[in-house]
Amino acid sequence: MSMRAEIVAVGTELLLGQIVNTNAQFLSRGLAELGIDVYYQTVVGDNSERLLATIELARKRADLIVFTGGLGPTLDDLTRDAVASYLGRGIEMHEPTLRKLEEMFAGRGAALIESNRRQAMLVEGATPLRNSTGLAIGNALTVNGTHYLLLPGPPREMKPMFENDASTWLKKLLGPAEVLHSVMLRFAGIGESALEDMLIDLIREQTDPTIAPYAKEGEVAVRVSTKAADAEEAARKLDGTLTEIRRRTDRFLYAEEDVPIETAVVQLLVRQRRTASLAESCTGGMVAELMTSVPGSADAFLGGVVSYTNAVKMKLLGVPRELLEGENAPGAVSEQTAAAMAEGVRAAADSDFGVAVTGVAGPALAEGKPVGLVYVGLAERDRPTRVEKLQLSGDREGIRIRASKRALYRLWLALTGRE
Amino acid sequence: MSMRAEIVAVGTELLLGQIVNTNAQFLSRGLAELGIDVYYQTVVGDNSERLLATIELARKRADLIVFTGGLGPTLDDLTRDAVASYLGRGIEMHEPTLRKLEEMFAGRGAALIESNRRQAMLVEGATPLRNSTGLAIGNALTVNGTHYLLLPGPPREMKPMFENDASTWLKKLLGPAEVLHSVMLRFAGIGESALEDMLIDLIREQTDPTIAPYAKEGEVAVRVSTKAADAEEAARKLDGTLTEIRRRTDRFLYAEEDVPIETAVVQLLVRQRRTASLAESCTGGMVAELMTSVPGSADAFLGGVVSYTNAVKMKLLGVPRELLEGENAPGAVSEQTAAAMAEGVRAAADSDFGVAVTGVAGPALAEGKPVGLVYVGLAERDRPTRVEKLQLSGDREGIRIRASKRALYRLWLALTGRE
Repeated sequence: MSMRAEIVAVGTELLLGQIVNTNAQFLSRGLAELGIDVYYQTVVGDNSERLLATIELARKRADLIVFTGGLGPTLDDLTRDAVASYLGRGIEMHEPTLRKLEEMFAGRGAALIESNRRQAMLVEGATPLRNSTGLAIGNALTVNGTHYLLLPGPPREMKPMFENDASTWLKKLLGPAEVLHSVMLRFAGIGESALEDMLIDLIREQTDPTIAPYAKEGEVAVRVSTKAADAEEAARKLDGTLTEIRRRTDRFLYAEEDVPIETAVVQLLVRQRRTASLAESCTGGMVAELMTSVPGSADAFLGGVVSYTNAVKMKLLGVPRELLEGENAPGAVSEQTAAAMAEGVRAAADSDFGVAVTGVAGPALAEGKPVGLVYVGLAERDRPTRVEKLQLSGDREGIRIRASKRALYRLWLALTGRE
Repeated sequence: MSMRAEIVAVGTELLLGQIVNTNAQFLSRGLAELGIDVYYQTVVGDNSERLLATIELARKRADLIVFTGGLGPTLDDLTRDAVASYLGRGIEMHEPTLRKLEEMFAGRGAALIESNRRQAMLVEGATPLRNSTGLAIGNALTVNGTHYLLLPGPPREMKPMFENDASTWLKKLLGPAEVLHSVMLRFAGIGESALEDMLIDLIREQTDPTIAPYAKEGEVAVRVSTKAADAEEAARKLDGTLTEIRRRTDRFLYAEEDVPIETAVVQLLVRQRRTASLAESCTGGMVAELMTSVPGSADAFLGGVVSYTNAVKMKLLGVPRELLEGENAPGAVSEQTAAAMAEGVRAAADSDFGVAVTGVAGPALAEGKPVGLVYVGLAERDRPTRVEKLQLSGDREGIRIRASKRALYRLWLALTGRE
C-alpha cells in the first residue's frame, strides 16, 4: 500500500522569511527514499487556532503527518499540546527522559525548571523518539489509521531523530517489501544534459529500478532506487542497472555515495599517501576552501596560493615575467601561465601534485579575453604538466564553482589513472 | 487594513526534496517588508486536482495568494490554466510579449514553437508582469476581493519580477500609508545575544519603528522598520531610533544596507586605494573566497597563501623555523606565528595590509591546543602588527566561518580608524 504524507512545519520565523524551510526538503527526500509520497508541505505560524485547522486539514488529505517545530520549552511551542488537544488526549511525562534531563542539569549545577520539564512530555500513548543532539523528545503515534510524527524544529536535532528512531518506526509501518533502497551515483566533469543523453534509453525505459538525475552545486548525481525486502534483495535488483551505468560513465563516476568531488579527491590522496597544493586566480581560494572543508584534509592538502595579481604570481609562484608582461606575452589567462602556476606551487609546497586555475570569472573581460575562459593546470612530480582549456558559462559565481569543480576533477582523473 | 497572504509554491520537485523552497523565504520577507502578513506557505505538486483544491483553500484563508512555479512551457506547468479555470476565465495572448519572444527566437534563427507561445499568455483580464530574466510573463489580478499573483518558479526570474512589477502592483493595492519602509543594519564582531543586550530596552519598548534582530552567517543584522507614505516621512520616523542604535553600536555597525562584511571591507579598500593580502591556516581559503566573491575585489585584494603545513608557512610566508619546530616553540597556533604570517604575506604581496588566521578548527585538538582557539594577525605598512586571541565555539564549519568574519572585522576596524 502506498502511503501519502504531508509535512507541516510550525514556526512564525518561517512565515516571516527569517529562515528557510530546509527541514521540508530533508524530510521530503527522506520520505521519498522510504517510498512514501509527499502530497503537500505546509508552513503555519505559532498560533493555536491555525495550527488546529492545519492538523484537521492534513488528517483529511494524508495518511502520515510529519510535524517539525513547536516542541521547545517556551509558550510559543504549541505542537505537542495542539496534537493532543486535537486527538482528545492528555499529555504525560516520559520518566526516562525526565531523569536524563535532571542529570544533565544537575551536572551543570542548574535546577531543571518547569519549561524544560515540558520537553520530556509526550502525547498520551505516543512512542518516544530519542533526541541525541538536544532536549525535546519526539512523538510517534497512530490514531484511527492516521500516523503522527512530531519532530523538533532545529535541523541538528530533527535530522538524527528522523534518521534513527523515526525511520525505524516508519519502516515497521510500511512492512519490509515497501522500503525503498537506493544508491546515489555522483559525477563530475560532465553536465546534467550530457549525462542524461548518455543514459537516455535507460531513463526512458525505467520501471524498476528507477533512475533519477539531480543537479548538484557544479556537479550531477543520479539516484538508482528499488523497493525490496532487504539490502540483499535490493542489491540483486539494482545490480544490472548499476553495472550498465558504470560501464557508460566510467570517466565521470567518482563515487557511489552522496559526497562531493572534494571528498573523493581528499580520500584518494590520503589513501595513496600523496599530497597536493593549489594556485588559484579566478577561483580566489574556492578550491582550497572546498578541500579544507573535508575533515582530515590536512594530511593531503599542503597549502595554496591565491594569486590575484601578476606580482604575486611572479613572487610566490615564480611565474616568469615574460609570460605576464609585454605586448606579445600570453598573459595571466593562458595555457603557459596555468602550467607555470601549477609547477610553481608544486615546487614551493614540495607536493606530489600542483593544481592551478586561471581564468576570467567576469563580470568584465580581462586581457581582452572572454568571460568564462578558464585554464586548469596540473603539475605532477616526475611527470609532464597538463593544461586543459575550458569555456564555461554562467554568472561570476557559477563560473567560479564550475572551474573549481573542474580542477578537482582533473586531479581525480590523475589519481585514478583515467586521464 | 492589514492584508493576509498565502504563498503557494507549485512543483513536484519540491515535494520530492530535489530543491529547497527558497522562494517562500524570499517572498515571505518581501511581503513582510511591505507590511503584508503571511499566514500560510503551501507546496503542492504538478497535479491539477490538488492544485485546484489548494487555490480554493487559499482563497478562503487569504486576501492575497502568491503563486510561484508552473508558468513554464511544458504540460507539467499548470498554474496559469488552473487559476483561469478556477475563476471561470479564459486565457489570452499578451501580444507585446509574443512579439518579444518571436524576435528573440528569430534572432537565434529558431522558430517559436507552440509550447513557448504559451509563456506569453495571461489569465483573461490579468495585468502582465514583465520577466526581465526569462520567458514566462507573470500575472496579477483581483477577482471578488481576492488578489492573485502568478510568478515563475526559477528564483532568478521570480525575484526581479517580484521586486519590480509585482511590488509596484502590491503597493498600489495597499495605498501609500501602508507601505513598510525599513533600514537593514549589519554588524560584525559581536554575537546576536550581546547585540540584543545592548539594545534590549529599545527592543522591549518598540512600537513604531519596530526593531527585529536576525542572525546571518557569522554575523548579525537588525531591521528597523516603519510604515509611511513616502521615503521622506519614513526617514523622519526612523531617524531617532537609528541615531540611538548608531550611538550604542558604533564599533560593530559596518553597514546600513544588507551586505556582508567582505563587501564593506572591499569597498573601503577600493575607496582608500589601499590593498590587502591574506595568510590562512585553519580557514583554508575561506577569507580569500569571501573577498574575491565581491565584484571589483581585484583592485583591493592582491593575493593570499593557504598555509596548512609548517613547510608552506616557512617557505612562502617566511615564518621563522624556531616559532614552529622544537620543544619550546610557540607552534603554528600562537600569537607569534599569527604575527609572522601576517607580516610575511604583506611583504610577499607588497600590500598595505596583511591579515593572518591560524587556529584549531577541529574536530581534533592540534598541538595540544583546544578546538576553537584562533589567532587573527593584522600587519600594516609602517605600523606595528596586532594580534587578537579568540576562543570560538561551534563545529568545524562554524569555527571557520566565525574566524573568517572576525579577520574581516579586524581589517574593517583598521580601515575605519576604530581599533
